[in-house]
Amino acid sequence: MENEVLFGIINKMLVDGKFSAIKDILVEMNVVDIAQVISNAEDEVQAKLFRLLPTDTSADVFAYLDKDIQETIVESITNKELHNLVEGMFIDDAVDFLEDVPANVVTRVLSQANPETRNLINKILNYPEDSAGSIMTVEMAAFKENVTVEEAVKELRRTALDKESIDTVYCIDSKRILLGSVPLRRLIVSAADATIGSIMLDDDQLIFVTTHDDQETVANLVRKYDLLSVPVVDNDKRLVGIITIDDVVDVIQEENTEDFEKMALLLPSEDDYLKTGVFTLTKNRIVWLLILMISATFTGQIITGFEGQLAKFAGLTACIPMLMDTGGNSGNQVSTLIIRGLALGTIKIKDYFRVLWKEIRVAVLCGVALAVANFARMFVLGKFGLGSGDVKIILVVCLAMVFAVIVAKMIGCSLPILAKLLHLDPALMAGPMITTIVDAITLVIYFGFARLILHA
Amino acid sequence: MENEVLFGIINKMLVDGKFSAIKDILVEMNVVDIAQVISNAEDEVQAKLFRLLPTDTSADVFAYLDKDIQETIVESITNKELHNLVEGMFIDDAVDFLEDVPANVVTRVLSQANPETRNLINKILNYPEDSAGSIMTVEMAAFKENVTVEEAVKELRRTALDKESIDTVYCIDSKRILLGSVPLRRLIVSAADATIGSIMLDDDQLIFVTTHDDQETVANLVRKYDLLSVPVVDNDKRLVGIITIDDVVDVIQEENTEDFEKMALLLPSEDDYLKTGVFTLTKNRIVWLLILMISATFTGQIITGFEGQLAKFAGLTACIPMLMDTGGNSGNQVSTLIIRGLALGTIKIKDYFRVLWKEIRVAVLCGVALAVANFARMFVLGKFGLGSGDVKIILVVCLAMVFAVIVAKMIGCSLPILAKLLHLDPALMAGPMITTIVDAITLVIYFGFARLILHA
Repeated sequence: MENEVLFGIINKMLVDGKFSAIKDILVEMNVVDIAQVISNAEDEVQAKLFRLLPTDTSADVFAYLDKDIQETIVESITNKELHNLVEGMFIDDAVDFLEDVPANVVTRVLSQANPETRNLINKILNYPEDSAGSIMTVEMAAFKENVTVEEAVKELRRTALDKESIDTVYCIDSKRILLGSVPLRRLIVSAADATIGSIMLDDDQLIFVTTHDDQETVANLVRKYDLLSVPVVDNDKRLVGIITIDDVVDVIQEENTEDFEKMALLLPSEDDYLKTGVFTLTKNRIVWLLILMISATFTGQIITGFEGQLAKFAGLTACIPMLMDTGGNSGNQVSTLIIRGLALGTIKIKDYFRVLWKEIRVAVLCGVALAVANFARMFVLGKFGLGSGDVKIILVVCLAMVFAVIVAKMIGCSLPILAKLLHLDPALMAGPMITTIVDAITLVIYFGFARLILHA
Repeated sequence: MENEVLFGIINKMLVDGKFSAIKDILVEMNVVDIAQVISNAEDEVQAKLFRLLPTDTSADVFAYLDKDIQETIVESITNKELHNLVEGMFIDDAVDFLEDVPANVVTRVLSQANPETRNLINKILNYPEDSAGSIMTVEMAAFKENVTVEEAVKELRRTALDKESIDTVYCIDSKRILLGSVPLRRLIVSAADATIGSIMLDDDQLIFVTTHDDQETVANLVRKYDLLSVPVVDNDKRLVGIITIDDVVDVIQEENTEDFEKMALLLPSEDDYLKTGVFTLTKNRIVWLLILMISATFTGQIITGFEGQLAKFAGLTACIPMLMDTGGNSGNQVSTLIIRGLALGTIKIKDYFRVLWKEIRVAVLCGVALAVANFARMFVLGKFGLGSGDVKIILVVCLAMVFAVIVAKMIGCSLPILAKLLHLDPALMAGPMITTIVDAITLVIYFGFARLILHA
């Protein structure tokens, strides 16, 4: 990217202390890129760079900085600058920043805000984490039913710079109850004397959420209906805010990351990997590692009960890892598909028997194919001949393979759906969990066939 | 949701054949919900329901239907209806539909389109799959530099219904070369006599992509810069289309799904799980299952080489699954974090040594904690006393645990970054792949300590 070159130039200018030249470059840049320049700079010049920015730009840039840099900046600017910053920011960005900083920083920032701003911020800070209320912004455009298009456009012209998004404007009654919505593009193509009430999408088609809805619900609605923003109402259906699609995109990525983490049995992390300390990383991982290790005790006991027989038949022990891995991998494949399907809504609980029947057929095909390949493999390895004893061992391994794959696929599709049914998170029923369970069952099957065929 | 109730009512009306009443309901509904009503209906009434819709609605609804229903409908409507449908659809939706249908359907649809529409569709169909060109729409608003705000708004009023998104309008020169962009909200708050050229975001801040850029690049830009749409240019920087954020949201979900699948070592699927046949599902899974099974041969040989010693020391074999699983799970946790970090751009190749150093420290902490817990566990199980022979076995297991976890974490963070360096997909270096590799190494470590301490 060309950005890299630019960053290099700015870095050289920083070394030479050419701050006024840097300022001239920064004001020409996109706020996201300015934030990146500041993030890439050495700690001690970050605040200095930030203070070069014009007031109107600085609030936008601030919203794109990482939390630790935001804190450094807030600590190093005057009360006057802080006042301009907090009043210049969109309320939802200010809330985002204040959510995770120390209490003394919150107090100082709020003390520099106007009473009205302070009240709004406090209100949003009180909504539950990850609720629609906590991610909404209160800066939207709303008009009464009888306002004309001309009046609305005039009002927008007067105030639009304060609004985070006017891509959709909303229609409310005198009690602020939400009546409908008008996309901006519809507004500008409508006749000047038409009223907002006459051109709005009304109740039947209006999509909205309430402040306590989960952010995942919001993301699913926006995705399903291709919305640019969604209005947020309180329990009395009064319009209190909007959530814009750029924030929804962040929610979608966040939810996906959380699913990836859960599927690897990690506790969800707050921060980017590189910013997370060694102890936090350890804490996020050790819980499930311990639980799974203790669970493996069970698998160990199955082996202990069969140790004598394993010693008697050379080759049986050597196949244990292969059988366990294949079972685990088979289960992992299907559980991933089901977890993803449940998350995207393409698979529902009521589809369970369809899924199970599909998986049994897939498992038979996979199991047989793997068993045949394994049969060939064991011959090629040359350790086994066509003597009846050797053929029996191969038979045990191949039969165990088929049945292990079938059971693994059945467990892999059942557990996520069962979790959903029990209002648990299906994502926990992914690879590691499935593997631990399937391992034990695979061994039981394996030793069962060994007893049956080898009379072990 | 209230939708469920409504769907129930419509289903009853369908049974009673009350189509005109259904029509009255449908015209009041959101196009996404209408599509859902049609999808939920029995196969034989789907086309009938579709034909109830007014022409202007039907094209929008069509875009939200699944491919198989779209095909059924196209087969059952007249050429005249097909003409209205294809001309009423946005070009990108038409392309989406035509991309995967049989050639005879494509031919019939294109034969009913106007020559201009046909050329546009053909052009977009020729862009590589998953490129910016293949997902863009050509219906956008673009003006010359010297056009005034008033003229632009007038023109938008005249044509806006044909444009998929006018939330941003673009500025081009006489050769259609992209000069800048103006968000619609900026347009309407600007003075009527200002020119587009004077209010646009120009070259320095303009974000655009070229037709051959990957859709993932587009998604990353939109996410990074919070864009509502991004202009697409050809190699001469001529504006040829735009990509809107609702399509980007779909791309993000698609890319995430692909990563989930790859991480479970599944070949990526084209369709939803429930719509994919048993043979396709089997094909998508068997390739990697076979490769991993054959790879496990190596693990088997390590055990074979140690089979005699395993038989001599009771308890050694029983700990194999626990050690293997713990190693696999440890590696899986870190590889998931690294793969996700690489995908979101929060971890880069140059961070490798920072990551490695972090992981070594986390691994030592995790490994020691697990070893201590395992030490306790082996005592509680009661099979081991404090005799020197037993303590030695416990020592072997615990030491192997610590080192297996360290090696697993090192491999888990190294392979995804190595894959990225080699321009392979890091997502392949997830759980199953890491497990197979870590299994073998864990056994080598385990047997190594057994030889050293037990003189086995």
